[in-house]
Parts: sequence; C-alpha cells; structure tokens
Amino acid sequence: MDYPVSDRNSVRRLPKRGHYDRKTIFGILDDSFLCHVGFEVDGQPWVIPTAYGRDGEVLYLHGSSKSRMIRHLATGAPLCLTVTHLDGLVLARSAFHHSMNYRSAVIFGTATLVEGEEKMHALEVISEQILKGRWAEVRQPNPIELKATGVLKINIEQASAKIRTGPPGDEPEDHALPIWAGVVPAEHTWKEPLPDPAMDPPHELPLSVKALSRK
Amino acid sequence: MDYPVSDRNSVRRLPKRGHYDRKTIFGILDDSFLCHVGFEVDGQPWVIPTAYGRDGEVLYLHGSSKSRMIRHLATGAPLCLTVTHLDGLVLARSAFHHSMNYRSAVIFGTATLVEGEEKMHALEVISEQILKGRWAEVRQPNPIELKATGVLKINIEQASAKIRTGPPGDEPEDHALPIWAGVVPAEHTWKEPLPDPAMDPPHELPLSVKALSRK
Repeated sequence: MDYPVSDRNSVRRLPKRGHYDRKTIFGILDDSFLCHVGFEVDGQPWVIPTAYGRDGEVLYLHGSSKSRMIRHLATGAPLCLTVTHLDGLVLARSAFHHSMNYRSAVIFGTATLVEGEEKMHALEVISEQILKGRWAEVRQPNPIELKATGVLKINIEQASAKIRTGPPGDEPEDHALPIWAGVVPAEHTWKEPLPDPAMDPPHELPLSVKALSRK
Repeated sequence: MDYPVSDRNSVRRLPKRGHYDRKTIFGILDDSFLCHVGFEVDGQPWVIPTAYGRDGEVLYLHGSSKSRMIRHLATGAPLCLTVTHLDGLVLARSAFHHSMNYRSAVIFGTATLVEGEEKMHALEVISEQILKGRWAEVRQPNPIELKATGVLKINIEQASAKIRTGPPGDEPEDHALPIWAGVVPAEHTWKEPLPDPAMDPPHELPLSVKALSRK
C-alpha cells in the first residue's frame, strides 16, 4: 500500500527512481539499523546518526533521555529520517553520467515519547533490528537504566524510496570511447568478532553473533 | 587547529567522545564521499544522501541544477552535513551498554553556488573523492552538462567529530555474568567490478578501479 504522495515526499529528480509503497520502503528500512535523523532548532538544522527499529507502521529511536535530539523531538517537532544503502559505484564513460547504485528511504513524521510497558518493547525492537536474537541473551534494562533512556515512537506520515540499479547510462555517442565502464558493487560485511579482553573466563560465541557471521 | 566551539557544535552527551580539531574531522571526511545533508524548508526538515568532495577548508556538493536541495541551499540557508562510519557493533553483557563503534563528523555552515572555472574544479574534487584517478580517465563535462549541474561550495563555520572505539563498557557487577561480550567489526568492501554489457569491445580495467580493489 502506498503512502500518500504530495510535494513533500514526491521524488522530483528522476521520478522513475521513486517508490511510495510500504513493501519497498520497509524493505530498505529492514536492511539496516542506522539512520540519519534531521530536525531543526531555532532555524538551525541538525543531522544526527542513530539506531532505529521498525515495528509494523512505527519506528522507534532511543538515546539518553537528556539528549538534544530526544528532548526536541519529544515536543512533536517535524522530523525527517533517512536510511541509505550504497550498493555500488557506477562508472560511466563521461564524468557527467557517473552515479551510484543505492537504495534510500526518506521518512516524514513526528515523534512522541514512549513510556511504560511499550518502552521495554521498543528497546527490544531496536535491539533486535541491530542484532536479531541478542535481546534474549543479555541482561535487560533495570529501572535506573530505563529512566536514563529516552525512547521515541515515530508515526510515519509520508515516505518515499529512491532506488538506482544497473549499469551506467552513457550517451549513445560516448559508447565508442575507449573507456572502461561498469559498476563496482559495494558490500558491507562483518569481520571476525573480537572478544572483550575483560571476559574471564571467555564464553562461547552466542547464536546471534554466529548468525551474523554467516550472512 | 580547532573549530570554534559553542552550544551548536559541542558534544554534550559523552563529551569525552567529542573532537573539534581539523585533523580529526578532515580524516573522517576523507574516508568517505557520502554524506547526509540537512536543511529546512518552511518548517520541514529534509535529510538527503549525496556525494561530496573536500578541498582544504571547503566542501563541494553537486546535483541537478533544478533540484530542491541545490536551489534551496544556494540561497544561503543554514545546513548541517553529517558523515558517519559504522566501525562495529559493541555487544555488552547488559542491553543498556550495547553500542556501536563509529566515527561521525557534523558540519555546520552555509553554501554558495559555484560558477565559472571553479565549477569544473569542484566537479573534479568530488569525482576524485569518490574514486581517485577517475577524472583523468573519462570524458569531461561539456557546456550543456555543466549547465545542467548545480555545484555548491560549503564554508564550514563550525564542526565536531564524535568517535567511539574499543570494547564494551559494562558495569563491574555485570562482568561475572556468563554472557559473551565483545565487538563485531564492520567493514565496507568493494566487490569484483561488473563491466558494462554495452562495452564492445571490452576495455581493460582502469588504474582507478584496480587501486580500489587493492584496498
């Protein structure tokens, strides 16, 4: 199902790359856990990298309950949350047609503070988005830690995705140029886990981390 | 040399992770080419992923000369440009002390449109930031392409970096818990280049791409 499209979320440059359906947008969100959140305080824009978790139609963010971002967004200020996957460098014959293959999702909405039972649920959602299975393996937050953590629920009002795939799109008259053209795919990988030196005795690698390494 | 510090760019949460010197901030910028730019139009914040290039004290951005971002920022509207490297997942014994190892730079400033000779220079800077050596290998922009491209120069007014490294910081009383703790390092890699199927005859892989694959 599509999000409503208006001037705010319509993809105006290269509209063929634009998508407004939940399946595409949620797919981009579910492939990551790191977003950049934009908001404005007294005329100054801010862009802060932070983790998120998706639960159906809702996104959760967390941070120190005293942080500028949490406190400001809790007032219901408009926000923009963007998730970007760099999938490759697109190397054309002309400088002009160089590009990137990417998938990005841009979310517009407002946030409210989460308290009570939903707060613990939201923290689990964020934790599971970052590393599936980890929540059940660790010591869960105590009341002091919960109080120190601010959790926001974002209600998505509008959203759009922009996707580029495939080879370069050079001008036909440039195809004869003796220049290599193609795509260099990008990959995000996880390396060998480094045990905490303070872990004594060392415990076995948990299932959550083992599953990550197999990806 | 440090950027001036005020309430705008001071790292208030976990101030020990904050840095204000050009060497640290430029190092984070130089390790990437993809940023998230934040700006505000009529009370609505926007966060747009885009490429950048650094030339000394200046950052350049480019885009379609008709794009919302280029046109709006060309008016001198305040902007925030953020670059984030995810270096690893920090897996603690407690949910609360889970974190990420990261390096982020947050830049505050305003932009002006670049025209004339500097415009071609700026495009070369952005191209070289993305893939060193590529600019000299390809057909450079013609007047029509230059006209279709908008280039912005960002004068950095203030900036800060935030960096986390190292193992998890669990509470001492949690160290005895039988839970694996450590860091899973993240890595960004380039895969085997995919030649453009339209390249006939196939040309040899250029030095720029060969150097990338060796990294």
